Amino acid sequence: MKNVRQLVFKDITDLKGHLTPVEARKDVPFDIKRVYYITRVAKGERRGFHSHRNLQQVLICVSGTVKILVKTPYGEEVIKLDNPAKGLYIGPMVWREMFDFTEGSALVVLASEHYDEEDYIRDYTLYEKEARIYFTENEEN
Amino acid sequence: MKNVRQLVFKDITDLKGHLTPVEARKDVPFDIKRVYYITRVAKGERRGFHSHRNLQQVLICVSGTVKILVKTPYGEEVIKLDNPAKGLYIGPMVWREMFDFTEGSALVVLASEHYDEEDYIRDYTLYEKEARIYFTENEEN
Repeated sequence: MKNVRQLVFKDITDLKGHLTPVEARKDVPFDIKRVYYITRVAKGERRGFHSHRNLQQVLICVSGTVKILVKTPYGEEVIKLDNPAKGLYIGPMVWREMFDFTEGSALVVLASEHYDEEDYIRDYTLYEKEARIYFTENEEN
Repeated sequence: MKNVRQLVFKDITDLKGHLTPVEARKDVPFDIKRVYYITRVAKGERRGFHSHRNLQQVLICVSGTVKILVKTPYGEEVIKLDNPAKGLYIGPMVWREMFDFTEGSALVVLASEHYDEEDYIRDYTLYEKEARIYFTENEEN
């Protein structure tokens, strides 16, 4: 799918548990300027409902499981994050929604830029219009 | 305590859950070159048992709880991480051990440098010797 791909990180396992390292510009394709995490989501709640114009992100579910809907004007897909060694890369101009957070789950997001409200598109009709222009201009994707 | 301090992050809360943002060079005092997370630690296990010569880290427990022992030649302290909005900054030359991981807990660590085995001190006697020199030379701490 355009601007979306699944990543698999190293999982360093021993009797004492699991350690998963994620190096900026190596395991994810950008400098990590911001990290945020979503926790304690009530059962049945759905979050997201936006796209970014430029931001690149990698989503990792470090505890529990969560489902991610990614959508462009050309198709959509649901990816279940159920293992801390899995990452979901989401590039520019992809609509996303997060749902089915299990109790105690924690979704960690690594982001390529500092917070910038101007980079968000929160209206789906506007998103679709801008996305068609963006993907037409970036046909190699 | 020398080179250790507790941080409190913003906790953006609504009916849909909690979102905690951590911006590099703003909410933590360094560029985030590496992120790693420790998960699925068996009951009773203790991890860590090392110091870093230069690395700075911030530890965040995003799910469950964990206790952190931080120790220098001049004293020690146990800090319980029990809230995703709490961070524990650990600078250079501090011995650390992590224990009492609850089931399903996830400890996320933000690090100021890429992985470098040369930066680790894993022998406590050697650590104590180097730490006395380090803290004598950095008396402003």
